Amino acid sequence: MPSEQPNTGKDERHAIAVLVDNEPGVLARVVGLFSGRGYNIDSLTVTEVSHEENQSRITIVTHGSPAIIEQIKSQLGRLVPVHAVTDLTIKGDPVERELALIKVAGKGEKRVESLRLAEAFRAQIVDATTEHFVFEITGRTSKLETFINLMKPLGLVEVARTGAAAIARGPEAM
Amino acid sequence: MPSEQPNTGKDERHAIAVLVDNEPGVLARVVGLFSGRGYNIDSLTVTEVSHEENQSRITIVTHGSPAIIEQIKSQLGRLVPVHAVTDLTIKGDPVERELALIKVAGKGEKRVESLRLAEAFRAQIVDATTEHFVFEITGRTSKLETFINLMKPLGLVEVARTGAAAIARGPEAM
Repeated sequence: MPSEQPNTGKDERHAIAVLVDNEPGVLARVVGLFSGRGYNIDSLTVTEVSHEENQSRITIVTHGSPAIIEQIKSQLGRLVPVHAVTDLTIKGDPVERELALIKVAGKGEKRVESLRLAEAFRAQIVDATTEHFVFEITGRTSKLETFINLMKPLGLVEVARTGAAAIARGPEAM
Repeated sequence: MPSEQPNTGKDERHAIAVLVDNEPGVLARVVGLFSGRGYNIDSLTVTEVSHEENQSRITIVTHGSPAIIEQIKSQLGRLVPVHAVTDLTIKGDPVERELALIKVAGKGEKRVESLRLAEAFRAQIVDATTEHFVFEITGRTSKLETFINLMKPLGLVEVARTGAAAIARGPEAM
């Protein structure tokens, strides 16, 4: 989602993980913080950490000047049901992976070429008829975008992406 | 995120795709609709469809009685910047895939066993030291949860999941 925030420095892309209590309205408050202040959300994912612990993990990929990134982290940390805010980008180069499902319905040589590229990008076929394929591809966001762009002239129908999951390298927790 | 919604029928799990204009505040309104009425969000992902088209796709996995699911779809369809609401579960059994990054730091036999299970579940090692592994696993949510539960006694440190991406089977778009 784009931003109305004035550009006050060189933009950086950050993956931020937020551990929250799993209660109604928490996600709305986190998202509201971004939309209310015009911060960017490049992708957002929210999932339960586990049923037992009753916590959810929200991963937000955002971009902005260093000052804006600091503001975002500080304000996230002040939200009441937030347990931890970790800027995975600051902690080093995190492991960041996204999944996309890509439907392609090319004919003839286009169909063959889409298969060739899928093999080169190690995409899996997860649904197919004589008219279409659905490819599953995982990797960094930039790799997924390259593959999607290559599919455009080959009969791209639809894309469903998950947004990035990210985890700090090394044995420690966030 | 859990719900305060009264249980008025047998719960069903639905994956709903929402195509929206990529403008500030849209995600907040969609999330606000769920939290305001106490609808469940099992997972939510939002990503840009493409830079050119200036649209985002939100995939929400929710559960509720058939009446609640109908309410959710109807209310989503009435939000202004929403272009399309598709209940992928109603259209048939969608292709649904999620990705998880799973950090495990077991010692000795636990470490060996975590590797064995990773191989059985076709998980990839995407980061490792002598003390830990980060596994990447993709598949249906239930498969990911089984794997995560198996890792718990083997030194599970942390899990980052993307939530589900879903796409209808067959050559047509949503």
